[in-house]
Amino acid sequence: MRKVGVVGVGCSKFGNREVTLQELAFEAVYEALNDAGLTQEEIELSVVGCVGTRTYEFMPAVPVNEYCGFVGKGPIRVEAACATGSAAIYTAYTSIASGIVDLAIAIGVEKMTEVDTATSNAVGGRAGNYLWEFHQYGTTFPAYYAMHASAHMAKFGTTEEQMALVAVKAHRNAAKNPKAHFQKEVTVETVLKSRYIAYPLKLFDCSPISDGSAAAILASEEKIRELNLDAVWIEGVGYSSDTSNMTRRENFVGLKASVQASRMAYKMAKIEDPIKQLDIATVHDCFTIAEIMAYEDLGFCRKGEGGKFAERGESDFGGKIPVNTFGGLKAKGHPLAATGIAMIYEVTKQLREEAGALQVDLKNYRGLTHNVGGTGHFAWVFILKR
Amino acid sequence: MRKVGVVGVGCSKFGNREVTLQELAFEAVYEALNDAGLTQEEIELSVVGCVGTRTYEFMPAVPVNEYCGFVGKGPIRVEAACATGSAAIYTAYTSIASGIVDLAIAIGVEKMTEVDTATSNAVGGRAGNYLWEFHQYGTTFPAYYAMHASAHMAKFGTTEEQMALVAVKAHRNAAKNPKAHFQKEVTVETVLKSRYIAYPLKLFDCSPISDGSAAAILASEEKIRELNLDAVWIEGVGYSSDTSNMTRRENFVGLKASVQASRMAYKMAKIEDPIKQLDIATVHDCFTIAEIMAYEDLGFCRKGEGGKFAERGESDFGGKIPVNTFGGLKAKGHPLAATGIAMIYEVTKQLREEAGALQVDLKNYRGLTHNVGGTGHFAWVFILKR
Repeated sequence: MRKVGVVGVGCSKFGNREVTLQELAFEAVYEALNDAGLTQEEIELSVVGCVGTRTYEFMPAVPVNEYCGFVGKGPIRVEAACATGSAAIYTAYTSIASGIVDLAIAIGVEKMTEVDTATSNAVGGRAGNYLWEFHQYGTTFPAYYAMHASAHMAKFGTTEEQMALVAVKAHRNAAKNPKAHFQKEVTVETVLKSRYIAYPLKLFDCSPISDGSAAAILASEEKIRELNLDAVWIEGVGYSSDTSNMTRRENFVGLKASVQASRMAYKMAKIEDPIKQLDIATVHDCFTIAEIMAYEDLGFCRKGEGGKFAERGESDFGGKIPVNTFGGLKAKGHPLAATGIAMIYEVTKQLREEAGALQVDLKNYRGLTHNVGGTGHFAWVFILKR
Repeated sequence: MRKVGVVGVGCSKFGNREVTLQELAFEAVYEALNDAGLTQEEIELSVVGCVGTRTYEFMPAVPVNEYCGFVGKGPIRVEAACATGSAAIYTAYTSIASGIVDLAIAIGVEKMTEVDTATSNAVGGRAGNYLWEFHQYGTTFPAYYAMHASAHMAKFGTTEEQMALVAVKAHRNAAKNPKAHFQKEVTVETVLKSRYIAYPLKLFDCSPISDGSAAAILASEEKIRELNLDAVWIEGVGYSSDTSNMTRRENFVGLKASVQASRMAYKMAKIEDPIKQLDIATVHDCFTIAEIMAYEDLGFCRKGEGGKFAERGESDFGGKIPVNTFGGLKAKGHPLAATGIAMIYEVTKQLREEAGALQVDLKNYRGLTHNVGGTGHFAWVFILKR
């Protein structure tokens, strides 16, 4: 298999953005091209990730490629719900690893604020034919993850305080990230006193609805050597998906798709002990409970111990493995298709020691991204190494 | 680069189908699995192509994979407008060629009859932010291709009769294909007397709005040898895309994206003379003029001679290169995402000599698929060899 590296990354400011979809995409593309020292002409393939259900652009790849300068190079759009960005990275990766091209860009862009919050939630809940859950009970994503939180609390004694600590960490990191949607610290009390959205999840347990984009340029080893590019190598690729029928899930205390995707990536990257071999992880914290489950599903701690892992600060700077150092989906924001690529951006910046005030200590120069669509309807894991 | 072959193909009946999206997908998946002699358990990756703008399923990969038995294996959906099926084949192809998996399925499925024709056309016209054309003038796809037809007639003297002959051939072939939407022959007079949709295109110059699905199972050379599978090899892969702003197009007498995609595929497959080296071609005849332009853009004849190529029967059985032997988009039907994979189905069946009454003569055992999205906003070409 040909080796593939990340040679340029870009990320827009996340938040309520009064620009078009294609303008938003260009912010990330422009930064990524400058970061790599490349021009559009040198890129052979553009893969556009966009969920698009919350925008009026039905076929987003066409205007995005046009505006960003990839006419002739953008034959494909990908979608995997909230894991769309990772699906775009994957498509660019396999295009290079297969030998079809040597330089490809993955672009993830989402305009979510074109519709109101109620519509956005309904679209999310309806997405993917989740059978009777949405149609009969009106279940939307806060409710789905509330079921996970309730199950985790009941089985393992996980507390609302422990979940609140995940939000506090996210906001503390996002406060130092100028691209984050929210740049304000919060206290445990603020989180606990915020109104319930779906018990036990409160407003501050939930990621916001954000506009945003991210882009990553990938290159073959040959091209990296030829152009003397600075690369962060993709050592591991893992994916999975799970049943859309919640009644068929084995349990609600974790996401089987996350376990499977991470094990596939670990096997490829020869990771036997993620805590010892990784310096940084970005996990899919669409809700605070999702980050706690991710610690367990990814093997950072044993199943059921995620709440205590957060409480002990093991996922914070100085802990066993700093997680979501740029603020996570929770506080940095979660523009669906941008999220998976923003994770690649974050890990790349960290492994290059370009994270400024949010820099982690590096021993292994290796990091992980974990990106989920739905409640594990899709899952992707990548392992990066500098 | 690892060699990749097509080892199983399936295609549903095209037409107005009173089944759900996932049931429709399963028809093709079931046939493809039986054709390959494989089970769902053996498949490692499922790529679902679905444009989806004409259905109420927002994230179609989830229910399709669930229903078809690919839970855990379906982390990605792709879209490239009417070329979506080819984008799915590409993603399965690069996944295998890269070494990530050995067995993958590409599924293309579309339910187009859930909305009325006017809505369907409006969605099509609006798709991809075609700038002022749609918003100011209400241009939908018949009108776009009418501009191509008018330009071709004006510059090269192409006639409405020549375009009608493309429709007559399509219907004659579809009449022998039990899976075709239309199974009735038509005469030149019928086509010429049908009402104008957008001058010079008449009703019988246009492909219909169809429901349908197709699936193809791809495998690595190692897996093909191991399981002793019957393979049709993918020798060439080509793609391109073009500006969405019609005013920026160099001309209207052809599709630059088709030229570029075919030359990329020809280079990879070492095709210097397509007429001499190919036995069969499936081209994107969403309108009759599109097939005439494809003859030229793909190098079957010189630019401007496509009308005469059709008139002389060169694209018919016994001609220089039989084109769209199963009835084409024009008469077999055009369920967007299914189309590109149905082309792989057709060429595979032909190269295996399983096309029955529609079998072409084989000399080179090599065929081509050509799949366009929009008016060349996307283009894909594959070369297959048995």
